Amino acid sequence: MRGFARYMRLDDALKFVLSKIKKVEPEEMPFYRARGRVLAEDVISEVNVPPFDRSAVDGYAVRAADTFRAREGRPIKLHVVGSADIGTCPKIKVGKREAVRLMTGAPLPEGADAVVMVEHTRLENRRLEVMRPVTPGKNVSARGEDVKPGQTVLKRGQVLRPQDVGMLASIGRLQVLVARKPGVAIIATGGELREPGETLGPGQITDANSYSLEAAVVGCGGVPVRLGPVPDELEPLKRVLKEGSREDMVIISGGTSVGEHDLVPDAISGLGELLFHGVAIRPGGPTAFGVIEGKPIFALAGFPVASLVAFDMLVRPALRAMQGLPANRGYPITRAKLTRRISSTLGRVDVVRVKLREKGGRLFAEPIMVTGSGILSSMTRADGFVIVPEDIEGFKEGSLVEIELY
Amino acid sequence: MRGFARYMRLDDALKFVLSKIKKVEPEEMPFYRARGRVLAEDVISEVNVPPFDRSAVDGYAVRAADTFRAREGRPIKLHVVGSADIGTCPKIKVGKREAVRLMTGAPLPEGADAVVMVEHTRLENRRLEVMRPVTPGKNVSARGEDVKPGQTVLKRGQVLRPQDVGMLASIGRLQVLVARKPGVAIIATGGELREPGETLGPGQITDANSYSLEAAVVGCGGVPVRLGPVPDELEPLKRVLKEGSREDMVIISGGTSVGEHDLVPDAISGLGELLFHGVAIRPGGPTAFGVIEGKPIFALAGFPVASLVAFDMLVRPALRAMQGLPANRGYPITRAKLTRRISSTLGRVDVVRVKLREKGGRLFAEPIMVTGSGILSSMTRADGFVIVPEDIEGFKEGSLVEIELY
Repeated sequence: MRGFARYMRLDDALKFVLSKIKKVEPEEMPFYRARGRVLAEDVISEVNVPPFDRSAVDGYAVRAADTFRAREGRPIKLHVVGSADIGTCPKIKVGKREAVRLMTGAPLPEGADAVVMVEHTRLENRRLEVMRPVTPGKNVSARGEDVKPGQTVLKRGQVLRPQDVGMLASIGRLQVLVARKPGVAIIATGGELREPGETLGPGQITDANSYSLEAAVVGCGGVPVRLGPVPDELEPLKRVLKEGSREDMVIISGGTSVGEHDLVPDAISGLGELLFHGVAIRPGGPTAFGVIEGKPIFALAGFPVASLVAFDMLVRPALRAMQGLPANRGYPITRAKLTRRISSTLGRVDVVRVKLREKGGRLFAEPIMVTGSGILSSMTRADGFVIVPEDIEGFKEGSLVEIELY
Repeated sequence: MRGFARYMRLDDALKFVLSKIKKVEPEEMPFYRARGRVLAEDVISEVNVPPFDRSAVDGYAVRAADTFRAREGRPIKLHVVGSADIGTCPKIKVGKREAVRLMTGAPLPEGADAVVMVEHTRLENRRLEVMRPVTPGKNVSARGEDVKPGQTVLKRGQVLRPQDVGMLASIGRLQVLVARKPGVAIIATGGELREPGETLGPGQITDANSYSLEAAVVGCGGVPVRLGPVPDELEPLKRVLKEGSREDMVIISGGTSVGEHDLVPDAISGLGELLFHGVAIRPGGPTAFGVIEGKPIFALAGFPVASLVAFDMLVRPALRAMQGLPANRGYPITRAKLTRRISSTLGRVDVVRVKLREKGGRLFAEPIMVTGSGILSSMTRADGFVIVPEDIEGFKEGSLVEIELY
């Protein structure tokens, strides 16, 4: 049995990983299916939105100058010459001391330069009394006020939200370039693994890892491709790693420790380059990373908590970067007060799962005190996690800490 | 032209809405496809995880009592009688002053009650020197340590995350009950609307609204069903509303103001019950809500910002509640300092879009000062929004406010 020669610092490990990540090529897709996808181009409008001057309120189109002297007690009087309908070109013009009735969204008739809100008028027969003055442009949504031709409306690298999809519709952009979803091969190793629901023989356990990793990949915008499980033998491992490296990324779990059955790092070196093995994080220390035929290969520990934590720390930023997103974990962050102290070891990053609760309008984080990276319930009970950096020995009870929310 | 008789307070409007929301029935699905879905049952394990006592480290299974006197300078000596493999039942037993070599995850052989880490041993021929004592149970992951039969591992109403999917695998739960995805009919009204990409005639605009609403529904776990667009005429409106009420919810946008073409509230009353029309929010005031054949019908304003804001304030909590989630907006929240004051009107909720930037490690929120709920770019430029409640007149420059993040 060997030991880890040295544990690499997490930030150095992440730098290594990111240096090997290439962005996936973009793909074109219909705008209305692009919600949640990462934009791979700047989107520039070719049109004006709105395409014409229109009324922003229900009221009367007027010449603003005619209303300047209007006061609450001394209204000015205008002649209503017709109405402008929504969805058609108004045939009527607004002359001096004239008004045209119109609804929100209706095009402003020629001659008019402002709209008086219906609430500020009184109509008697076809005489309109205007109680308040309007300035030119008042209550008018001008052509191009929202978007002008040549304007960049959405930027490369942003995730498309509902309003962004609406914007694409608005400017008539039917197809958009987005990052292709990276394909991620997921391999579970270990002769002891059985599929969920299979009867377990003596010493056998259920493969949970590849399923949680698969779900984690989907949550990062990737497309998981399940391979294996494979036994802990060099040749089958090499075969499945080679097959996996047709995808954009490979995640293999198990067989990364330093026991005699832990052949994954050797299999990676045999096919490509092993860049590190052992990272100074807990859980997740026995993590290895390499490259086979230009594709990043993550070898995560076989214990489910260790593998998911290493996924968060190293794979998640990589998967995000591949799609053109910032190379971070991207979890929402909140702040909470620790209900107990957390102790850690200098030189190692500790990822401590916490349960949040609110009390008297304040947020408290209770560290889940479970050792053993096999205890998946420590993660299913958690709302998020605190990171204890390398250079401190922990946090005192009552510290205000940053929590990343699952 | 009529005016709004009265604007309902937003919190009262939401109470009305929620009083009409029924949870959708659950559906069964394979656990490995359930990520992101809302659990509709408590999940109780029937098995032990792990299913047997196993080693949590690479090392030697021993009788703890044999090691009590071991010290760094004065190791105790044990006889190595074999090894226990991963994935099989160990045939070998650990007797007095004996040790069995084993890897992380291997079952603990009969007779042993602890494991000594390989790092704390030295092997010479088959004599093992143990440098540190272990207590019974040390480095052993006991049967049922993670999960015991009868234990509730996941709770109704929670969204399934990667670790939860892993837990379902672990306990061999192949099918789970989750909330069915609510079907949401989306209808755009207005004779002036054209499909994205269609050439616009005079006075015509592109329908952006139904596309942004569709994306918003998907983002809340719903399944959008597009109907329409329909013209602003009572009979076609009633026909499409009736058709839409076959789904779990209807969202209709446009035709909700108080102009003569705004017939949607009348169409709702004609088919069912109109519960309110006009909410004291900006943007989004001209929002109506009713029930047709037991189904909630949201009538949102035709302007894209107004409709999306009203969606966030009223539809989002309703869609979440339907699936068994808390009846809130559920956006992540952060705190930031306002770069400018926000003024509002007493008695009305203002939803102010903001752009965030970091400067010197602090987060600043810049209010996007755009009036007019037609300006969709005010929302595409925003990172989130601040809510100004009814009972205050705004926030001062420099105030620390809560931002809900899109």
